[in-house]
Amino acid sequence: MNLKNLLLNFKRGKLSLKNALSNLKNLPYEDLGYAKLDHHRALRRGFPEVIFCQGKTVEQVKNITAKLFEKNQLVLATRATQEMYYAIKDDAESDYKDIYYNKNARIIVVGKLKKVKSGKSILMMCAGTADLPVAEEAALTAEVLGNKVERLYDVGIAGIHRLLSNKNKIENANVIIVVAGMEGALASVVSGLASKPIIAVPTSIGYGSSFKGIAPLLTMLNSCSPGVLVVNIDNGFGAGYAASMINKM
Amino acid sequence: MNLKNLLLNFKRGKLSLKNALSNLKNLPYEDLGYAKLDHHRALRRGFPEVIFCQGKTVEQVKNITAKLFEKNQLVLATRATQEMYYAIKDDAESDYKDIYYNKNARIIVVGKLKKVKSGKSILMMCAGTADLPVAEEAALTAEVLGNKVERLYDVGIAGIHRLLSNKNKIENANVIIVVAGMEGALASVVSGLASKPIIAVPTSIGYGSSFKGIAPLLTMLNSCSPGVLVVNIDNGFGAGYAASMINKM
Amino acid sequence: MNLKNLLLNFKRGKLSLKNALSNLKNLPYEDLGYAKLDHHRALRRGFPEVIFCQGKTVEQVKNITAKLFEKNQLVLATRATQEMYYAIKDDAESDYKDIYYNKNARIIVVGKLKKVKSGKSILMMCAGTADLPVAEEAALTAEVLGNKVERLYDVGIAGIHRLLSNKNKIENANVIIVVAGMEGALASVVSGLASKPIIAVPTSIGYGSSFKGIAPLLTMLNSCSPGVLVVNIDNGFGAGYAASMINKM
Amino acid sequence: MNLKNLLLNFKRGKLSLKNALSNLKNLPYEDLGYAKLDHHRALRRGFPEVIFCQGKTVEQVKNITAKLFEKNQLVLATRATQEMYYAIKDDAESDYKDIYYNKNARIIVVGKLKKVKSGKSILMMCAGTADLPVAEEAALTAEVLGNKVERLYDVGIAGIHRLLSNKNKIENANVIIVVAGMEGALASVVSGLASKPIIAVPTSIGYGSSFKGIAPLLTMLNSCSPGVLVVNIDNGFGAGYAASMINKM
Amino acid sequence: MNLKNLLLNFKRGKLSLKNALSNLKNLPYEDLGYAKLDHHRALRRGFPEVIFCQGKTVEQVKNITAKLFEKNQLVLATRATQEMYYAIKDDAESDYKDIYYNKNARIIVVGKLKKVKSGKSILMMCAGTADLPVAEEAALTAEVLGNKVERLYDVGIAGIHRLLSNKNKIENANVIIVVAGMEGALASVVSGLASKPIIAVPTSIGYGSSFKGIAPLLTMLNSCSPGVLVVNIDNGFGAGYAASMINKM
Amino acid sequence: MNLKNLLLNFKRGKLSLKNALSNLKNLPYEDLGYAKLDHHRALRRGFPEVIFCQGKTVEQVKNITAKLFEKNQLVLATRATQEMYYAIKDDAESDYKDIYYNKNARIIVVGKLKKVKSGKSILMMCAGTADLPVAEEAALTAEVLGNKVERLYDVGIAGIHRLLSNKNKIENANVIIVVAGMEGALASVVSGLASKPIIAVPTSIGYGSSFKGIAPLLTMLNSCSPGVLVVNIDNGFGAGYAASMINKM
Amino acid sequence: MNLKNLLLNFKRGKLSLKNALSNLKNLPYEDLGYAKLDHHRALRRGFPEVIFCQGKTVEQVKNITAKLFEKNQLVLATRATQEMYYAIKDDAESDYKDIYYNKNARIIVVGKLKKVKSGKSILMMCAGTADLPVAEEAALTAEVLGNKVERLYDVGIAGIHRLLSNKNKIENANVIIVVAGMEGALASVVSGLASKPIIAVPTSIGYGSSFKGIAPLLTMLNSCSPGVLVVNIDNGFGAGYAASMINKM
Amino acid sequence: MNLKNLLLNFKRGKLSLKNALSNLKNLPYEDLGYAKLDHHRALRRGFPEVIFCQGKTVEQVKNITAKLFEKNQLVLATRATQEMYYAIKDDAESDYKDIYYNKNARIIVVGKLKKVKSGKSILMMCAGTADLPVAEEAALTAEVLGNKVERLYDVGIAGIHRLLSNKNKIENANVIIVVAGMEGALASVVSGLASKPIIAVPTSIGYGSSFKGIAPLLTMLNSCSPGVLVVNIDNGFGAGYAASMINKM
Repeated sequence: MNLKNLLLNFKRGKLSLKNALSNLKNLPYEDLGYAKLDHHRALRRGFPEVIFCQGKTVEQVKNITAKLFEKNQLVLATRATQEMYYAIKDDAESDYKDIYYNKNARIIVVGKLKKVKSGKSILMMCAGTADLPVAEEAALTAEVLGNKVERLYDVGIAGIHRLLSNKNKIENANVIIVVAGMEGALASVVSGLASKPIIAVPTSIGYGSSFKGIAPLLTMLNSCSPGVLVVNIDNGFGAGYAASMINKM
Repeated sequence: MNLKNLLLNFKRGKLSLKNALSNLKNLPYEDLGYAKLDHHRALRRGFPEVIFCQGKTVEQVKNITAKLFEKNQLVLATRATQEMYYAIKDDAESDYKDIYYNKNARIIVVGKLKKVKSGKSILMMCAGTADLPVAEEAALTAEVLGNKVERLYDVGIAGIHRLLSNKNKIENANVIIVVAGMEGALASVVSGLASKPIIAVPTSIGYGSSFKGIAPLLTMLNSCSPGVLVVNIDNGFGAGYAASMINKM
Repeated sequence: MNLKNLLLNFKRGKLSLKNALSNLKNLPYEDLGYAKLDHHRALRRGFPEVIFCQGKTVEQVKNITAKLFEKNQLVLATRATQEMYYAIKDDAESDYKDIYYNKNARIIVVGKLKKVKSGKSILMMCAGTADLPVAEEAALTAEVLGNKVERLYDVGIAGIHRLLSNKNKIENANVIIVVAGMEGALASVVSGLASKPIIAVPTSIGYGSSFKGIAPLLTMLNSCSPGVLVVNIDNGFGAGYAASMINKM
Repeated sequence: MNLKNLLLNFKRGKLSLKNALSNLKNLPYEDLGYAKLDHHRALRRGFPEVIFCQGKTVEQVKNITAKLFEKNQLVLATRATQEMYYAIKDDAESDYKDIYYNKNARIIVVGKLKKVKSGKSILMMCAGTADLPVAEEAALTAEVLGNKVERLYDVGIAGIHRLLSNKNKIENANVIIVVAGMEGALASVVSGLASKPIIAVPTSIGYGSSFKGIAPLLTMLNSCSPGVLVVNIDNGFGAGYAASMINKM
Repeated sequence: MNLKNLLLNFKRGKLSLKNALSNLKNLPYEDLGYAKLDHHRALRRGFPEVIFCQGKTVEQVKNITAKLFEKNQLVLATRATQEMYYAIKDDAESDYKDIYYNKNARIIVVGKLKKVKSGKSILMMCAGTADLPVAEEAALTAEVLGNKVERLYDVGIAGIHRLLSNKNKIENANVIIVVAGMEGALASVVSGLASKPIIAVPTSIGYGSSFKGIAPLLTMLNSCSPGVLVVNIDNGFGAGYAASMINKM
Repeated sequence: MNLKNLLLNFKRGKLSLKNALSNLKNLPYEDLGYAKLDHHRALRRGFPEVIFCQGKTVEQVKNITAKLFEKNQLVLATRATQEMYYAIKDDAESDYKDIYYNKNARIIVVGKLKKVKSGKSILMMCAGTADLPVAEEAALTAEVLGNKVERLYDVGIAGIHRLLSNKNKIENANVIIVVAGMEGALASVVSGLASKPIIAVPTSIGYGSSFKGIAPLLTMLNSCSPGVLVVNIDNGFGAGYAASMINKM
Repeated sequence: MNLKNLLLNFKRGKLSLKNALSNLKNLPYEDLGYAKLDHHRALRRGFPEVIFCQGKTVEQVKNITAKLFEKNQLVLATRATQEMYYAIKDDAESDYKDIYYNKNARIIVVGKLKKVKSGKSILMMCAGTADLPVAEEAALTAEVLGNKVERLYDVGIAGIHRLLSNKNKIENANVIIVVAGMEGALASVVSGLASKPIIAVPTSIGYGSSFKGIAPLLTMLNSCSPGVLVVNIDNGFGAGYAASMINKM
Repeated sequence: MNLKNLLLNFKRGKLSLKNALSNLKNLPYEDLGYAKLDHHRALRRGFPEVIFCQGKTVEQVKNITAKLFEKNQLVLATRATQEMYYAIKDDAESDYKDIYYNKNARIIVVGKLKKVKSGKSILMMCAGTADLPVAEEAALTAEVLGNKVERLYDVGIAGIHRLLSNKNKIENANVIIVVAGMEGALASVVSGLASKPIIAVPTSIGYGSSFKGIAPLLTMLNSCSPGVLVVNIDNGFGAGYAASMINKM
């Protein structure tokens, strides 16, 4: 019995509250040998397990997708290659109606996105054009999780008037994600202008003493303006996930 | 005319809405030569400038406190020494009624805290007894900013039953701050159990390859469980500030 | 005269105890010019020299295998490529009956494994599916060395119930190997639950500030729970070797 | 009811097996506010919680000692200052009969050590005289945990004959702890001679590019001889603890 | 014959052009055993050798000062302690008329400063009050070298309106020195607004992952806005020296 | 209306001074979605925005080039691939008369260079032949920006007479750029001989403990000779840009 | 006039001693634009300039070889690719009689080696088979420079009897080069046995926390046995060059 | 029987060659419990064991000195404090005639130095006055070991004429030690001028990105001029020791 049916049975009175809760708390993870799918997560954390594709084989990603889809009807896979996308799309045993791949953000979505009610939105900013893949990973993650996302790209501080002319967007956002490579100073500057939390994502864009993202990572951790919260280098997914958590509060 | 009077004049009709807003947006910073006080910050970011005492002389801290108090009636000073506390307390030119120093957290509060309405609370967790000073810096900051804070200390993962027996506190918290040194794994474990954002603070507690906090910093940035947001090593203030921003949403 | 014959001659009385010992202690290494094979190692350390293939040419690996097989009838080669496997398999001058290659673990075994008597077993755990190659290198090494190995994969702490529901396996294991990348916190959590030594293997799985395994390495070295012993990043072989040493005590 | 009484009651038939087990599994930790004592640990891991004094106040150490002693009659405190020792010794509310402080190893032991049955022993080696404090921390920990320890000090590889003339001690030991600073090569050399596991402890002894123990840490992690297991820099306690776990198998 | 006399003799016709030049090019350094004073430097680089006091004894600093003063009538000593200042001031063998010590900047000046002709000026900016000592080291160095210096302190980006309201100063400066610790983003922002070169000085102000100035150093080296030139952490002297070179062009 | 026309209209009296200034200060950036072109930069900083091609797609580079060319008639693109060059050259919608690609320096120039009036020149030095690509990036940048550049290549300090025999070039240069990899000591030596500022560019040339440019970066930052200003590893463009700023003063 | 002719003319009396010396001291370097060949080096340092091929184009290497050969009749090129070898071999304008390429050591030798008089020899040791390329670079360099070299390979400390059984070679060598990767402990052990200087070469062989040679580099720098001198990671050439300098004393 | 008597007995015929050799090869180390004195070292390596005082107690240093003096009549102790010097001097049980302490170099010498025959000498160079303590440690070590040492101090490259005017000393030296902090470029420059091996000692002199000696260490390891051999940061003793080995060849 999958999670949906369990809940429907409860709603229809076929399952008591006590039994439903008990069932849910003990909802078993599913053991594929090389992976133990955490079906309990949707209940516990508000969204089903997300597949981090890096380091997994195409075959593994295909099978995990199928198992997760069975229970949740919506699957998000990050760091996915085009090859993985085709494997899922052409999976003979499954027959997904909605499947979408964003090559730039390296994300696969299987299933139908919920319509987002107009409401508070997440402002997605990035410093340069080269930061787009990470920014899109964050933006898409937040959208799959049911958030409205506004994009404001290429507003790095070398031309600060581009940023200042968008000051009202910064003041009105509910949560802000700032993606920046090189010296990563954008997060500090935005934080000084905003009254909402900033989630900062350093990227590995740059060269030399950028050290694959260490420079913007340190910049963001040492921000002289409080309210900047940092995730791992290039971790667009983590930023979108946390922004969604905050935006829904 | 200080900020308070400006607002009162507006309320009493002595100042039009348009003029008040205009005045506020251009509110000048105050120039002390060695410091430019940002009186505009309370309006822009929701709380007046906080004094980061480290690297400032006792004389400078005393004077900045006086200037900020004049405008805001509530001053928060972090990384403050006992000597600074006495200098402020005995400041002949000012006559503060409420002044409080927490030696452990190295925080001075001048002015009266607002009563916190019962409401959503921040859960303050730390892994070991030695992490207390940083945890208290975070907790006090959040309290000064008007939040209810619940403390759950010494719940490191070496005895995970201590943590699991407090699972309902984790599930009920609105925002969670996790302070941990050594390997800093507590944040990941808590994040796996919670549905709200986790703000993780690595501490410099430990020795050898802890490298003054680098080990827990990396642990937290690489958390396998999404929703962990990281601040600088020992940055209790930043964690408390951001948690307050989120808790008030 | 190889080691086996020497011992048989001793058993059959053809060699006195004194002579046998003397012979053994002086057992010469074999000099191939580019390598000096340590035939004495089986006697001294309980298992013949293992071939670390990385940095060696296919030709060198093939020849060393042949020389070691002659003396020991059982050869273990780690970090081996498929090309090396085929070179050994098709070695015209040797005629191995049993040869096995595990592509995932990059291990070649030439010779017949001993049957493992049912007895105390090593518990092989890994945090994520992407850690499997290193985990399998460790598991296979331990099996070649004559140990019973139980596998428990994908039990990372993001869904700690997957781990806790296997608590009895942890309590019953004689030695535990924990393989984990990203933040590597699994070792600390397992250590807090177990009464036997934990051998922790950080992997280079992850991205950004994982720094190719530095993050989990530091996590494991700084574990707040005592009893965690660490080997090099991705060193599955070393973990399996040490676990075998301990398991046989 | 402390752990000892609980067990005695069970032995005397005042408590059924089922009740005893249930009691034990739920044995609560004790909450001192700033610390949650893990009284369950003795049962779960074979030895009561050990006090890591660094970062704790003298008052906290004194109180935790008292609480732990009440339950376990034997307390081990590491990284303890002389001041802490005197505070415990002169604790008016407790009245310890046996209390011992080793200034070199920075260890306090409260309670009576068990007599060690003659049996398998741990060989404690260190490379130089300056490594003694860490070596003694390890040796004392192992002794408190009930092991026989043999010491072999100042056998660094600059004069390898000092090491080779003790080869039989190395061959006969059941577990070996190697403590070394500077380049830390001793562990690799010893490992090449032994058939039992080596626990290697890098120390911060050295200067310049030793980088407070990073040099020997890396040396030990990269040992070309398998069977070397590494703990944190200067972590004598962790080495002694793990060696005891292995020695008792 | 000191440098001044040599030049005067030339002017008075007592020395031919050829001889003067030859003399000057071969001007010997003076050997004090522990130091070789480079009297040629004033000619070659436009300013006499500056004494870097760190690592020198008080006695050495006193003697070097005396020797340099004899030739140049103006001596600059950086990283000087108060003790060194008194030793020079009370030097029985010398009798300096003008001697000045700035404790904050750790600079001693012996001799009379040249009047600065009104002209192009260096703008000295710093991000926070704690950066003042380094900023003053730079400002004083530039002044001793004969430049007009304008100070603009505590204009960090947390309150960017403080910076923007001084935009015309930035646009009018001939050279700009930016001193900043923590994340050091000020240099990038200023560079985006200016058309003149920026000399950026990272400071060791900060804590945790600031790593004693590494964070702002990397930020400045990776500035996304071209025209930022970087000197060593806390190297106020170097910044002032280079700014002077550029300002005089 | 592009910038040129705006200025011409002003000169011809079709636009008042006030209107021209106002127009210029508000000159909008152009929003391409993935990039916001900073057309204001030429006015503010003296040269139009330069395209940093790394991390951008070929399509993006082609379009940004077209938009910038429309306004400025001169476009500089750095870190450009040959593929990008052909895409721009064959751009059907644009019809550039002058387009030049230097494969070594990875630079594309679209538009006609201004004739450089004979005047003060920049001396471009490099330590070894392998440093040429970075040196050429710097030299070409400075030339595009309108400077005379003199090249002095392969004058590393291993044969210091090669350097000393060019001493008069060093003494006569107005600004010096020193490009060096390996240990990067050339900048310090040149600085000791020159009276003008040195811009030092560390390169990633070298191996082993050169750590992709960290060794020369540190060497240059720690130069014992003042007047050395450092840019990022391999940042030829930044060096040429800053040298031009200084040379034009 | 090349160096050889100059010397011959001097021997034949066509050139006075004074003129010869003067000529030699001012021997010009040859300027190829992208390279300045230091023809003076053979005189000054005892061997002509060696071509470090990495980072140079095939064309450049070919031309530099031709120019150097003209003056010296013996050319050594390191880090050379096979492609470079063929370019030199097939150089239409030159017609070398003796040309040799060692692919393993990546070395090209053009010209005839001098016969080495029997004399003191350099002992070339390496720890593992994978260290051979670096060891051969060192050995060949020393041989080209006219030294007798004895090879002792694969004597790592995991089987220390292989090393000890060659103790007399160690005691008899005049200079010893030790090449080792992984933990690099071989140098320290050899140094403890020898009375001659040890030149230690760390290699990038290893994985994980070997960090591409940092581990053995630190080991060698921190050797507890004095007399170990270290060169850069994988710098076989430098080791061979210095060993030759010492061996010829 | 100490080493001297043993040899004398042999010379006087009281001991056969065979017996003497046998005695010498088995010369036991002396076990003090906390130290195993390597009396064999004088024979094996040409000089008795040297005491590295750092990390040893005053009592330990005093006793080791006494034991070593008994056998060798000449003791060298490095990194010695003044307190250690007085303890040795006032050692009631020993009665040393010759004892000498150099506070700057932190060296104690007990016993009479041998007269140095005029012969080949070691050139001791340092870059700045602050490098003197390390330079003196090296110079004194070489002198105690029986070498003639010439000192050339404060010849850093900021004033390269100071160095060039001493070129003949560099050309005539048999071995050169170069001690330098900050950027450490002196070693490369000297190496380019010399035909003898250079031993380079980086010092921890400097600040900021010198990182306690990492900057000059990397500079020296990456020297573009071959023949530079590097020892640990501040390791004057190691440099003096190795220079002596080479000088005596």
